[in-house]
Amino acid sequence: MRRLGEIELISEYLAPLAAHPGAFGLKDDAALLTGLPATGLAITADGLVAGVHFFEDDDPGDAAYKALAVNISDLAAKAARPLAYTMTLALEEAPSEDWAERFSNGLARAQAKFGIALIGGDTITARGSWWISITAFGEASPRGLVPRTGAKAGDLLYVSGTLGDAALGLRLRQGTLGQHLTQAQRDFLIARYLYPEPRLSLAPALASFATAAMDISDGLALDLSRMCAASGVSAEVSVTAIPLSDAARAAVNCQSEAIETILTGGDDYEILAAVPPDLASAFEAASLHAQVPAARIGTVAAGAAPPKFKAANGSGLILKIKGFEHFKV
Amino acid sequence: MRRLGEIELISEYLAPLAAHPGAFGLKDDAALLTGLPATGLAITADGLVAGVHFFEDDDPGDAAYKALAVNISDLAAKAARPLAYTMTLALEEAPSEDWAERFSNGLARAQAKFGIALIGGDTITARGSWWISITAFGEASPRGLVPRTGAKAGDLLYVSGTLGDAALGLRLRQGTLGQHLTQAQRDFLIARYLYPEPRLSLAPALASFATAAMDISDGLALDLSRMCAASGVSAEVSVTAIPLSDAARAAVNCQSEAIETILTGGDDYEILAAVPPDLASAFEAASLHAQVPAARIGTVAAGAAPPKFKAANGSGLILKIKGFEHFKV
Repeated sequence: MRRLGEIELISEYLAPLAAHPGAFGLKDDAALLTGLPATGLAITADGLVAGVHFFEDDDPGDAAYKALAVNISDLAAKAARPLAYTMTLALEEAPSEDWAERFSNGLARAQAKFGIALIGGDTITARGSWWISITAFGEASPRGLVPRTGAKAGDLLYVSGTLGDAALGLRLRQGTLGQHLTQAQRDFLIARYLYPEPRLSLAPALASFATAAMDISDGLALDLSRMCAASGVSAEVSVTAIPLSDAARAAVNCQSEAIETILTGGDDYEILAAVPPDLASAFEAASLHAQVPAARIGTVAAGAAPPKFKAANGSGLILKIKGFEHFKV
Repeated sequence: MRRLGEIELISEYLAPLAAHPGAFGLKDDAALLTGLPATGLAITADGLVAGVHFFEDDDPGDAAYKALAVNISDLAAKAARPLAYTMTLALEEAPSEDWAERFSNGLARAQAKFGIALIGGDTITARGSWWISITAFGEASPRGLVPRTGAKAGDLLYVSGTLGDAALGLRLRQGTLGQHLTQAQRDFLIARYLYPEPRLSLAPALASFATAAMDISDGLALDLSRMCAASGVSAEVSVTAIPLSDAARAAVNCQSEAIETILTGGDDYEILAAVPPDLASAFEAASLHAQVPAARIGTVAAGAAPPKFKAANGSGLILKIKGFEHFKV
């Protein structure tokens, strides 16, 4: 099996991903982004580490796909349109052709799906597990970025898609979720874990109607608490209103604690948005137009405080863990 | 000793570095860069890994300084002016307050020196040695980026500053360089290794007069061969014309093989530029005005071929290694 040096990896596998004219075929020291948006450039950075954000034995193409998708999800949540990205890739040893092909194919799939091209980066030696660090650029909406900080008491809280699928998919990968699901349900949850679906088409609805928005990457409980803290508000969420896929509902029906996983597990990459009540029907219509399901899960309350989660019987849910944090102390 | 979680690390140590208004105090999912240059945005990415690019026991502030400096050096070589940067920082465990303070102080020193601010990023868990991945943004010069590809036969080759100091400093750190240097010489070489000096003030001279430019990060021999390959030319370098510091000259005088280290060792972060002969005196005057020494080391020759290095007696120098490459096969 042929192994690739840095130069072959770049010229044969990464340069074809850099169709952007400002990438100079990845042959120069810097890229040039021109035709810059008058609205400003949205910039986000997210890194993924093997053994932390994905399994060491995951397909490298799936890891690459996810690395780009989670960055695009941040752009989507801020109502920005993807333009280009840089990637620093660190490998402990020279990759095989097979590895490079799978990795670059995963990136190519993600690029095609999200309408974005590689514009530059770095390939270096890792000391430990391999990792990918991406910085993505987007065109800001005419109002700029939809912030985390704008939620107001009385706003309605919406989430896109369904929550908890990826966290349940992770538990299936880890073997800690029961065997009561059908194969189709298992496949669905694992696919949701592997292939986040950034809600780019929701951008116009967010830009026009949301007072605050963010993507849910570390679990609804933790990310909503972050939005509340940033906005100086609290929130009340009806757990029964949280949109669940059939597979997630099947998991909850058999194992009621699965609702904890759904609220705190993370990796959803769905959008959490606060919308003033008088704009709610317009927001819902815009979501429908964007073909992104948006479910109303609760309301924003006055006073900076952690959000409350109410069960069907009206009692408050106490979550044992809040969500995922890196190097938590 | 208090250990910091992700949230404390960001809010107490990194947010103060993000004075940029578009950084939103590092409290949002994305940054917003406005007032974008009409000339285009220069973008460069470079990552550094403990145990690969710096020693595990180096001061984290020195590592942080270097991580930012090597990115700025790429902007400088392309004649771009620094604007902002993102950083993804990966740590294997929760850092101590002392670590965070030294790390952020190093970044603060670099930011002040290079006139740049943190605008966003990510803090994650490493699996193995800790690392920093930076993407830096700059304002392109009115002509755009000075490319690697523009060198023409007959152009004169210049380098800024002195070469080889950092590579000799690294050998001192590794204990493979003789004991014949004075303490002052040793301190100088190690400082040159730890604190690269991006030649930002040379940008106007490069933008106005250079046909091609790049920074020398992997050794003159390898980086010049890259410029030659990118430009479809060759080059002839007079080894005796390569500018050496007093300390580097002392090293060569006692250990003649040290010239190999100087040509191939890397980490110089000086500028290599090709300048047409009729613009040479203007380029030299502009360098003088910028207070950056620029030495003429050779000429660009016709025909795509590896560069030749001529010794004092006119014979060609055969280099055992060409320079530093990641995961070389």
